[in-house]
Amino acid sequence: MTDYKEQLANAASFIQQNDHFLIVSHINPDGDTISSSLALAHLLKALGKSFQIVNQDQIPKKFLFLPLADQIQRIQNVKEKFSVIISVDLADRLRMGDIDPLVAEGAKILNIDHHPTNDHFGDVNLLLPTAAATAEIVYDLTDQLEVPIDKNLATCIYTGLFTDTGGFRYSNTSPKVMRIAAELLEYGVSPSEIAEITLETITKGHIDVLKIALSKLEIIEDGKIAWTFLEKKDLPDTILSDETEGIVNYCRNIEGVEVGVFFKETEDHVIKVSLRSKKIVDVGAIAKSFGGGGHARAAGFTFHGPLEEVKALLRYKIKRDEGWSRLGNET
Amino acid sequence: MTDYKEQLANAASFIQQNDHFLIVSHINPDGDTISSSLALAHLLKALGKSFQIVNQDQIPKKFLFLPLADQIQRIQNVKEKFSVIISVDLADRLRMGDIDPLVAEGAKILNIDHHPTNDHFGDVNLLLPTAAATAEIVYDLTDQLEVPIDKNLATCIYTGLFTDTGGFRYSNTSPKVMRIAAELLEYGVSPSEIAEITLETITKGHIDVLKIALSKLEIIEDGKIAWTFLEKKDLPDTILSDETEGIVNYCRNIEGVEVGVFFKETEDHVIKVSLRSKKIVDVGAIAKSFGGGGHARAAGFTFHGPLEEVKALLRYKIKRDEGWSRLGNET
Repeated sequence: MTDYKEQLANAASFIQQNDHFLIVSHINPDGDTISSSLALAHLLKALGKSFQIVNQDQIPKKFLFLPLADQIQRIQNVKEKFSVIISVDLADRLRMGDIDPLVAEGAKILNIDHHPTNDHFGDVNLLLPTAAATAEIVYDLTDQLEVPIDKNLATCIYTGLFTDTGGFRYSNTSPKVMRIAAELLEYGVSPSEIAEITLETITKGHIDVLKIALSKLEIIEDGKIAWTFLEKKDLPDTILSDETEGIVNYCRNIEGVEVGVFFKETEDHVIKVSLRSKKIVDVGAIAKSFGGGGHARAAGFTFHGPLEEVKALLRYKIKRDEGWSRLGNET
Repeated sequence: MTDYKEQLANAASFIQQNDHFLIVSHINPDGDTISSSLALAHLLKALGKSFQIVNQDQIPKKFLFLPLADQIQRIQNVKEKFSVIISVDLADRLRMGDIDPLVAEGAKILNIDHHPTNDHFGDVNLLLPTAAATAEIVYDLTDQLEVPIDKNLATCIYTGLFTDTGGFRYSNTSPKVMRIAAELLEYGVSPSEIAEITLETITKGHIDVLKIALSKLEIIEDGKIAWTFLEKKDLPDTILSDETEGIVNYCRNIEGVEVGVFFKETEDHVIKVSLRSKKIVDVGAIAKSFGGGGHARAAGFTFHGPLEEVKALLRYKIKRDEGWSRLGNET
């Protein structure tokens, strides 16, 4: 694998030598993929290059404040084909979604990403697995291309850093992230507005489901597991899927709790299970054993069967985690 | 008023020329006053000076992880008198509490603070009203005294910055704050642990009262005001007063809401009212008209009378705020 400096130089050449780019962010888009693709759009604009930004899915409303967000098109609404593609924050090509109709034969891909699992699918790869966010890599690329940062570009990079570090609260919050954030604030970024819009605003629907979820919250196993659930009847069609986001954290964040679980019945006998742990239990491994995925502190899976069954199975598996007994001795 | 550089030099001299300091943080202590007083203790320790840290009140449990927090004494438990006092994060001398028994005649005070309302009560004053936190000023003082920063000192300063900027989410999150935070992370501070302990951990009691508060939440005035309340019967003695913290934010943070209000009945016909606004309504002025205080976006007052009365009065006052009509046109 070529070193990062060389990768930056190659990525910069790729951008300098081409034009009319298709910028692709990942399906089910989050703050980092959207912010990073828009930061890249601002960067291309500054270089006088043309581009089209696409996503297979709808952009969550809260990210529409980002400058140029109005130019993101759904893949199915674009009828052109592109020979130069930049993928942003995608660990593999499948995360592009149904992109094939937009890809010209022999098209070249620049793959910009921070996921350690990235499979190097690009013709040119710009990968930094230690980066907190893909936005951090786009910052480095901006520097490499000597593009002057303005408030718009700064707002996009800041939002990517901010959302992918959970508002500078996750362990990926590095000195480099903070140094970049400090610099971006100098360009007039409003940290309070971005925090307000991306992390603090809640909807009436969220309050409605949170209320139900808290009333069903159970704390078991000497206070080490907290879980709650929403049944199909608790989730009318007016409740959007992202309105149940964050409920699992109420379980996890309770003092003394190690594992928080949120069960969401999406169809009869189809239960989406979100898992979070604080320090010890490897919920990634547990989710994997149910056919799901994630990492040690945040993971999930889908269960087909009744709620009581998945509860019993999960409780059994959590208690068999190799850290569980240590936990008993600590508290 | 002497300029900040001169103040720093004077404060450094004060520390260098004296010994056996009494460090006083403010009554009803918050993250910044505790962290800053402990940062100062580490600084004095590094200089080989002796000190006693006191507070009139109990230190909230969540701040006991801070290095040297175990050395903070309640004022009433200290029987000595001190000739050199450093006050940290106090706008006026009254915020020290019942400190008189510990103050020797002719004692000198170094007053370190960032509140714009500070009344310069010190013999030496080190005041920077533009600082996000008093911890920012203690950082500058560390630099002035050329004390090398270690992980313990860094953890205290970081926690002060973190808590007083609402986790880098308030508008006081300046480039300087972020630059200092970046440097402190280099000394091994764990941003995720500090966030976890100081801002994310919730108690079972909090879940209990939040559940009730959400079930009573009302959205009125075309979605511009959201409020909720807890009655005395909802607050058994097992619920600590800080377990109702943050409830007002659920009201304020709802999409479209401008003013969030939380009413808490502490005694029969005694209602503590917390007010938050997003952008326009000056809740500080409203609270003041009820004999309370605060600032434009966060304020509070205590009302003596029935809940229905304060609701009606408050609704009337909010609607008379000079920004209210503009708000109608905006949304």
